[in-house]
Amino acid sequence: MSVQPPRPFYVPVGNEEQVFKAAYRQGLSIVLKGPTGCGKTRFVEAMAHDLGRPLITVSCHDDLTTADLVGRFLLRGGETEWVDGPLTRAVREGAICYLDEVVEARQDTTVVLHPLADHRRQLPIERLGITLDAAPGFCLVVSYNPGYQSVLKDLKDSTRQRMVAIEFGFPTPDVEEKIVATEAGIGPDRAAELVRLGQAIRRLETGGLREVASTRVLIAAGRLIAEGLSPRDAARAAIAGPLTDDSTVTRGLIEMIDAYLSGSDD
Amino acid sequence: MSVQPPRPFYVPVGNEEQVFKAAYRQGLSIVLKGPTGCGKTRFVEAMAHDLGRPLITVSCHDDLTTADLVGRFLLRGGETEWVDGPLTRAVREGAICYLDEVVEARQDTTVVLHPLADHRRQLPIERLGITLDAAPGFCLVVSYNPGYQSVLKDLKDSTRQRMVAIEFGFPTPDVEEKIVATEAGIGPDRAAELVRLGQAIRRLETGGLREVASTRVLIAAGRLIAEGLSPRDAARAAIAGPLTDDSTVTRGLIEMIDAYLSGSDD
Amino acid sequence: MSVQPPRPFYVPVGNEEQVFKAAYRQGLSIVLKGPTGCGKTRFVEAMAHDLGRPLITVSCHDDLTTADLVGRFLLRGGETEWVDGPLTRAVREGAICYLDEVVEARQDTTVVLHPLADHRRQLPIERLGITLDAAPGFCLVVSYNPGYQSVLKDLKDSTRQRMVAIEFGFPTPDVEEKIVATEAGIGPDRAAELVRLGQAIRRLETGGLREVASTRVLIAAGRLIAEGLSPRDAARAAIAGPLTDDSTVTRGLIEMIDAYLSGSDD
Amino acid sequence: MSVQPPRPFYVPVGNEEQVFKAAYRQGLSIVLKGPTGCGKTRFVEAMAHDLGRPLITVSCHDDLTTADLVGRFLLRGGETEWVDGPLTRAVREGAICYLDEVVEARQDTTVVLHPLADHRRQLPIERLGITLDAAPGFCLVVSYNPGYQSVLKDLKDSTRQRMVAIEFGFPTPDVEEKIVATEAGIGPDRAAELVRLGQAIRRLETGGLREVASTRVLIAAGRLIAEGLSPRDAARAAIAGPLTDDSTVTRGLIEMIDAYLSGSDD
Amino acid sequence: MSVQPPRPFYVPVGNEEQVFKAAYRQGLSIVLKGPTGCGKTRFVEAMAHDLGRPLITVSCHDDLTTADLVGRFLLRGGETEWVDGPLTRAVREGAICYLDEVVEARQDTTVVLHPLADHRRQLPIERLGITLDAAPGFCLVVSYNPGYQSVLKDLKDSTRQRMVAIEFGFPTPDVEEKIVATEAGIGPDRAAELVRLGQAIRRLETGGLREVASTRVLIAAGRLIAEGLSPRDAARAAIAGPLTDDSTVTRGLIEMIDAYLSGSDD
Amino acid sequence: MSVQPPRPFYVPVGNEEQVFKAAYRQGLSIVLKGPTGCGKTRFVEAMAHDLGRPLITVSCHDDLTTADLVGRFLLRGGETEWVDGPLTRAVREGAICYLDEVVEARQDTTVVLHPLADHRRQLPIERLGITLDAAPGFCLVVSYNPGYQSVLKDLKDSTRQRMVAIEFGFPTPDVEEKIVATEAGIGPDRAAELVRLGQAIRRLETGGLREVASTRVLIAAGRLIAEGLSPRDAARAAIAGPLTDDSTVTRGLIEMIDAYLSGSDD
Repeated sequence: MSVQPPRPFYVPVGNEEQVFKAAYRQGLSIVLKGPTGCGKTRFVEAMAHDLGRPLITVSCHDDLTTADLVGRFLLRGGETEWVDGPLTRAVREGAICYLDEVVEARQDTTVVLHPLADHRRQLPIERLGITLDAAPGFCLVVSYNPGYQSVLKDLKDSTRQRMVAIEFGFPTPDVEEKIVATEAGIGPDRAAELVRLGQAIRRLETGGLREVASTRVLIAAGRLIAEGLSPRDAARAAIAGPLTDDSTVTRGLIEMIDAYLSGSDD
Repeated sequence: MSVQPPRPFYVPVGNEEQVFKAAYRQGLSIVLKGPTGCGKTRFVEAMAHDLGRPLITVSCHDDLTTADLVGRFLLRGGETEWVDGPLTRAVREGAICYLDEVVEARQDTTVVLHPLADHRRQLPIERLGITLDAAPGFCLVVSYNPGYQSVLKDLKDSTRQRMVAIEFGFPTPDVEEKIVATEAGIGPDRAAELVRLGQAIRRLETGGLREVASTRVLIAAGRLIAEGLSPRDAARAAIAGPLTDDSTVTRGLIEMIDAYLSGSDD
Repeated sequence: MSVQPPRPFYVPVGNEEQVFKAAYRQGLSIVLKGPTGCGKTRFVEAMAHDLGRPLITVSCHDDLTTADLVGRFLLRGGETEWVDGPLTRAVREGAICYLDEVVEARQDTTVVLHPLADHRRQLPIERLGITLDAAPGFCLVVSYNPGYQSVLKDLKDSTRQRMVAIEFGFPTPDVEEKIVATEAGIGPDRAAELVRLGQAIRRLETGGLREVASTRVLIAAGRLIAEGLSPRDAARAAIAGPLTDDSTVTRGLIEMIDAYLSGSDD
Repeated sequence: MSVQPPRPFYVPVGNEEQVFKAAYRQGLSIVLKGPTGCGKTRFVEAMAHDLGRPLITVSCHDDLTTADLVGRFLLRGGETEWVDGPLTRAVREGAICYLDEVVEARQDTTVVLHPLADHRRQLPIERLGITLDAAPGFCLVVSYNPGYQSVLKDLKDSTRQRMVAIEFGFPTPDVEEKIVATEAGIGPDRAAELVRLGQAIRRLETGGLREVASTRVLIAAGRLIAEGLSPRDAARAAIAGPLTDDSTVTRGLIEMIDAYLSGSDD
Repeated sequence: MSVQPPRPFYVPVGNEEQVFKAAYRQGLSIVLKGPTGCGKTRFVEAMAHDLGRPLITVSCHDDLTTADLVGRFLLRGGETEWVDGPLTRAVREGAICYLDEVVEARQDTTVVLHPLADHRRQLPIERLGITLDAAPGFCLVVSYNPGYQSVLKDLKDSTRQRMVAIEFGFPTPDVEEKIVATEAGIGPDRAAELVRLGQAIRRLETGGLREVASTRVLIAAGRLIAEGLSPRDAARAAIAGPLTDDSTVTRGLIEMIDAYLSGSDD
Repeated sequence: MSVQPPRPFYVPVGNEEQVFKAAYRQGLSIVLKGPTGCGKTRFVEAMAHDLGRPLITVSCHDDLTTADLVGRFLLRGGETEWVDGPLTRAVREGAICYLDEVVEARQDTTVVLHPLADHRRQLPIERLGITLDAAPGFCLVVSYNPGYQSVLKDLKDSTRQRMVAIEFGFPTPDVEEKIVATEAGIGPDRAAELVRLGQAIRRLETGGLREVASTRVLIAAGRLIAEGLSPRDAARAAIAGPLTDDSTVTRGLIEMIDAYLSGSDD
């Protein structure tokens, strides 16, 4: 007797769950667009739970080869033996395959997705001389941070046009407060202060900041506070430190921390 | 007793079927030129069906080596054993070999096509020390998106001049409506609205758009509508999202969606 | 009893056959300079026939390694076994070795030709620790398109000065008409029209054109006409399509096609 | 009966020990920011001692591959046998894994850290087809010198925002004197002179200097003095030599050495 | 009973034979500087003959690795077996090792020459964990074309300063006439004409010419004349063709050919 | 009974022997800074002799991998067997490990030196999963030519600050005369002339010269003179040739040779 694990904690912001499930039912591929730390990974975990499909996640990077996705021959007992990669496993098992930060992968790696992402739903494995038809339930999901896009690192149009897009932003304040309080294990008032601080930072011009404060860094600050650090020490370590290396910008962020977090300037 | 599978759904736009078949009968190679999502892959599937030849498709990419096309030695039981690549299989079997997005491949990979593409119709396999004569029925087809051409990624002239070119554009409105309705499973009125939206987008200056709306994205929007999403949600996810990451351009596309799709601004 | 195959169809333009045969008798290496599609490959085939030597052709490319030319060790039955490359085979058998588009090869690959191309006529094979003397009859021939030359892709002077050069252009009109009629299987009048079209295109400024129309594309157009396509469809597919991707230039070429080919504007 | 080794000599400068231990208890990852030679490595050694965890250190560099961190197959007795890399060992054993100078590693190597650094605390090992959950006590620590940051060498925001930051500077004079005296085995007066010299150099404009004098070079000078070299010879070899190759700047530094170190101009 | 082969045909221009032999007796390494085709290879062959040492020649190129010079492990009967490279063979046998066009090799390959080229006369073979002392008679000779030198391709100073330099130019007219007549098998008058043509070309500004006419191309022209080609055809193929691809420059060279070679404008 | 070999001939210029030995006793690493040919290699040989430690020298280059220093697996009898590299051998045996021209190595190779060069004195061997403690007597010495430093090729500050620096210049005239006379086997007057010539060249502006004349080239000239060459021929081959390829600069150097060396203009 197996017990169903609980649904991963995810609070929807808009219609993202409806769009995901409609695309899933149609066998369409999906691209999730949005900044780092806004909950894309957690969302896919929740969708896989709701749809009852296994989830196979691959963190993409510059050096990810087609063989890393599709599989390779290994030497076993003097024989070369084929070992499926995560994409091939997902195709065979009808799993959801989530390629996180897909633009980090080399473009050749994304081209291998084309026959899977269009009407063919096929994965040709050249080295085996076979073409797999994706099992029912297989769904290809990729994520993408438009803020990082550049000439060198971008999703090809022929890949994008094979996918349905869902855009993510940061949650609304009341949703984000609920997330921060739940994830960090702190009270609602402290969570509300952290969210107001996060929103103030997001309103800044991004001159000295590398990126705005994500929900993730607010949760990390909350967890350090829950551990007994002062709010200032916690926010400096979890928010200011990751956002900038510049000492002037750091001083400005500490002033904001002192202004928004009660007890931070004790 | 085998049953002939149905002809892949393809509606001709011009004389492309005649040119393909004449070149096929003459043993000439063919380059298909046109934007992403306009039906090149489907066209080759239909031609292979009409001519009764097997079709072997290779999605090209930066990292595709000559060995990936021609074959390689694998270690089996302590022996190195030769395994044909897809191009060699097509040459031996007299199949149609379709190299999708051939400019993505490294130029060295395309040079291996030269003796196959001219009067010799031969594939030298250096590593075996043999030269194969292409079986009757073998036909080399490559596709190419002129909009992507650049100094780095372009088909060499010595390769181009070995091929007969067929140009593809988007289908005429009545043909496209028929395709969208059939492929998405929606009514003709909704299909006509989507096609008019697609044509309006194609008339825009391409300032903020990455590429024009292809037939493929119109079909995807239709499929999400068939799944119960509102027209606006469907078109935003399947058309606007893939076409742009810019928020101003996105707002403009949503206004067009509201104007062209009935019921989209409910 | 073996039958001598017929001489490959080649019509000389100037003294190229005399120069080739004199260099061959002297054991000198030969570089063929000229544009794509002007008949260099066919010329070498005819020379090999006349001189009664086997012909070994290698299409050069960026990724062609010295090992691809000279040979490599393969694993057979647990032993590494040496397998000659095409250059080594030619050296041992006294064949004509033709390296097509030699500037595509990496310069290190061309340096291996030096001891073969000068008075030594030797091929050192470092990995075997031996040096082969070329068998009588061995002749090294390379081709080269000066129009492609660039800083990155050029034949080194120390390589060039080891070779005798033969320059190729397009044949004279009467020779080219004979070639097009014979190769395409069309009548002399149609062949003459195609040659006049080709010459008109060669007189154009090359602003929008990638390269001038080669004899090869005129033959391809003739073959499509022989297959029943209209002259306009045939010339558009076989001549205009390979020469440009620009729509304005395409329109200009179609006007020329209509003007030069009878029956093309029906 | 094992004897607990003594605590590595580390004198705290601020709240860095509290922040580290709070992040450790929360399972958060940690980035140490600061210049070379300020004691980051020693700090991690002291934290590992206090928390009773093994410490696994990896010096990062350009050529460090994911396989170097995660593991690889080796050939043993004709079988390919998997050997864990240091990161995998740390994940299995619940060790502290310290990646020194992490920006030197290729970005693909840092992306493999993402699922370990966020709420998942998982290490997917694609080549084994498994995903490891980090053992309790596992903690990921990376170090980073903001002064070296550049477009090419920087920590990705999606990596930074998964970590809590602790900033390091040089210790206060009294702390640094204690460190230099203890580590070099010299008297407190000589140590104080060396620290004053170090502070004077740190106040210089960095025009001709590559980097300011670290605590490490002050200790090295002290050790050479303890070995019997004159203060000038010691400081020239251990401080001036590493800091500059410029002869004018060298002369300036020697004047400072003569001014700050008693007996150096004998 | 073995017969001593004849001395390779080499006519000295200056004191190059004395300098070579003095350096050889002192165990010093030698760099030969000069343009392509001036006789450097033939000179080394003559010196090896005079000194009674075997000659091992390596044509250097971009892809020549240290392993190609020093040796590598090959798989034989399931064992890895070491096979000496040409440099190691020369070190063991006391041969003259001639690295032709050494600047073509990667700088790392030249660094391996340092301990051989200075007082140590040693070759460390890292992969065997041994260091070989060069056998008596070993002599390292490299050639170098200063005209090709560039930032990327140049001999490191630490390599140059380990060597004695001998500069080569083209031979004096009377010497060159003797060489051309002997090597091409033509009469002295024709040889004198070819040498005068070569000297006239060497006096030209090098605007359209890639490099001046070497003795080697004059010999090649003579050999084509000996084979029965007209002087103009011979000189065009062997001199003008290798020196330029430019049609204007070609016309100028043909005028010079007509002016200098009797019977060339028949 | 073994006989102690004689001390390598080295004449100290300043306090370099004291600094080296103090650093050695303290277990500190050492960087030798100075131009090519000034005696750094000989100095390390003398220090190893005085300290009674074995000396393991590695000439660094662009392609030197960490595996070349640390070791690698080789296939022996079907097993992969580990073979120590020179750095690992030195660590195990307590040898002096001398990395000549360390900036030529890739930076990743120098990072592997960090744990060896600081208080840890450890060499982690990732591929074996072990960390070696350096045996007593181990000492890391690297050399470095500041004149070659550039953005691409420079020693990282985090590496430099782990080392004690010793600067080398050319010896004083009387020391250099003694070295040249002893090494070349010529009389003191001729040696004095060569040193005066060398010093005159070192005083030149370095416009046309690649580097100043090192002690090494003066010795080479002396050896050619000892072999019977005229002073001019010897100095031209051993000094002018290595220092420049420019004909104007060469003429200037020959004038200096004639002026400084008696009997050179005979």
